[in-house]
Amino acid sequence: MTSSPSALLGALDPTSDRAVFRQIADHLREAIDKGRFTEGAKLPSEAELVEHYGVSRMTVRNAISILQGEGLVHAEHGKGVYVRPRPPVRRLASDRFARRHREQGKSAFTVEAEAAGSRPEVDQLEVREERPSQDIAARLGGARKVLVRRRRYLLDGRPVEFASSYLPLDLARNTPIAQPNPGPGGIYARLEELGHRLERFEEEVRARMPAPAEVKTLRLAAGVPVIHLIRTAYDTEGRAVEVCDTVMAADAYVLAYQLPAI
Amino acid sequence: MTSSPSALLGALDPTSDRAVFRQIADHLREAIDKGRFTEGAKLPSEAELVEHYGVSRMTVRNAISILQGEGLVHAEHGKGVYVRPRPPVRRLASDRFARRHREQGKSAFTVEAEAAGSRPEVDQLEVREERPSQDIAARLGGARKVLVRRRRYLLDGRPVEFASSYLPLDLARNTPIAQPNPGPGGIYARLEELGHRLERFEEEVRARMPAPAEVKTLRLAAGVPVIHLIRTAYDTEGRAVEVCDTVMAADAYVLAYQLPAI
Repeated sequence: MTSSPSALLGALDPTSDRAVFRQIADHLREAIDKGRFTEGAKLPSEAELVEHYGVSRMTVRNAISILQGEGLVHAEHGKGVYVRPRPPVRRLASDRFARRHREQGKSAFTVEAEAAGSRPEVDQLEVREERPSQDIAARLGGARKVLVRRRRYLLDGRPVEFASSYLPLDLARNTPIAQPNPGPGGIYARLEELGHRLERFEEEVRARMPAPAEVKTLRLAAGVPVIHLIRTAYDTEGRAVEVCDTVMAADAYVLAYQLPAI
Repeated sequence: MTSSPSALLGALDPTSDRAVFRQIADHLREAIDKGRFTEGAKLPSEAELVEHYGVSRMTVRNAISILQGEGLVHAEHGKGVYVRPRPPVRRLASDRFARRHREQGKSAFTVEAEAAGSRPEVDQLEVREERPSQDIAARLGGARKVLVRRRRYLLDGRPVEFASSYLPLDLARNTPIAQPNPGPGGIYARLEELGHRLERFEEEVRARMPAPAEVKTLRLAAGVPVIHLIRTAYDTEGRAVEVCDTVMAADAYVLAYQLPAI
């Protein structure tokens, strides 16, 4: 059952120079934002909106396509248009790579997932030796060959992140880091055991629309951007010992950071 | 002059189960990524692509619309489709709120703009007293009334960011913070003069597609997301003295942060 659109949506403004389909999209968006249509709720049907606004089907369709593009609604073929449920958002804390977590034998991903009450999983794991891109090589101080660890992270069965870790080959070859499962605490714990005591991480954060392969890997809804995060780990001697290049579903994350005032 | 598409684009793969318009979009995207079509370059015309691939105009149009959605190209009516120039990206350093910048009488925005060799501007400035949203009130430790400073930032004439700063009214009223121009070093310098020595900032970073009003304010191209950043400034007594809610054009920024390993 859907409520009558007339109870939930306003009337068009005939004096506005805003195109009619945009006005309709504005009404629907406002109704969603204000909770008049809640997550998972069905929007009024095309026929109901045609009737309510006195416009053509094409105008209604154009309005809906705007909301789809913004990731607010999704169409289920032959059934209707629904308000997209917002996935649980994970907050990545600014202390997520603190040594005390590694010493508990936990990876940052596990720490965060547990804090959020979610079930973490990793799949599509690939470990191999490669020649790095110019950008990765430069970040690693000119490494010519690297060990790459690629993997996808899922929370409660939903893919949320695809990460590629690059380590200088001379440092990682024939170590537990080259094993599919590097052991408790993950590769950062292993790096420290190998004598590379970690001092700090630098992260660069960008946002953009996903490429088609990323839409597929992360099962992204239309209108959901990705956060592209590049993290470099430095040891106490100032050497870059790992670069992690991560593409994250933007609707699944909040990144938290602390900045010094001093 | 455009080069012949046959020299720059491959042939369709008839054995692929990937839809033909997606294959064409893939070819064009790859050619852009590899620099075969550079920034500002014109893509082959619809007619040339129809001829090259032996497909309908509609198929070509669908392929182009994918690239428009990703923000890679823009159509100029009656002229053609062009590779969208990437605006200069500003890197926001992790020390951008350090006291030494304030002591030089510079705001963080000015510091960053100068580092990037750009001309900074601020417009649409509005200063007023308001009742805050629940979220802002909670972040400010339960403030019932706030002073709000809203403004748009431009770099070399291009809008890049719209920011709203909220300060507890009891702290900001009848101070230089309530003046349109709060003076050298900006509101953080004034807060410190008022006895609120700043200790740290917390930032929360999200990415999403823009709402229509944000597209307008920031003059965003299709397929460009926004970074939504909420920063809270804390004084040395642990009081939240300002919340800055900022919406940034994602194609204009890289945010840099340091994370402790200890």
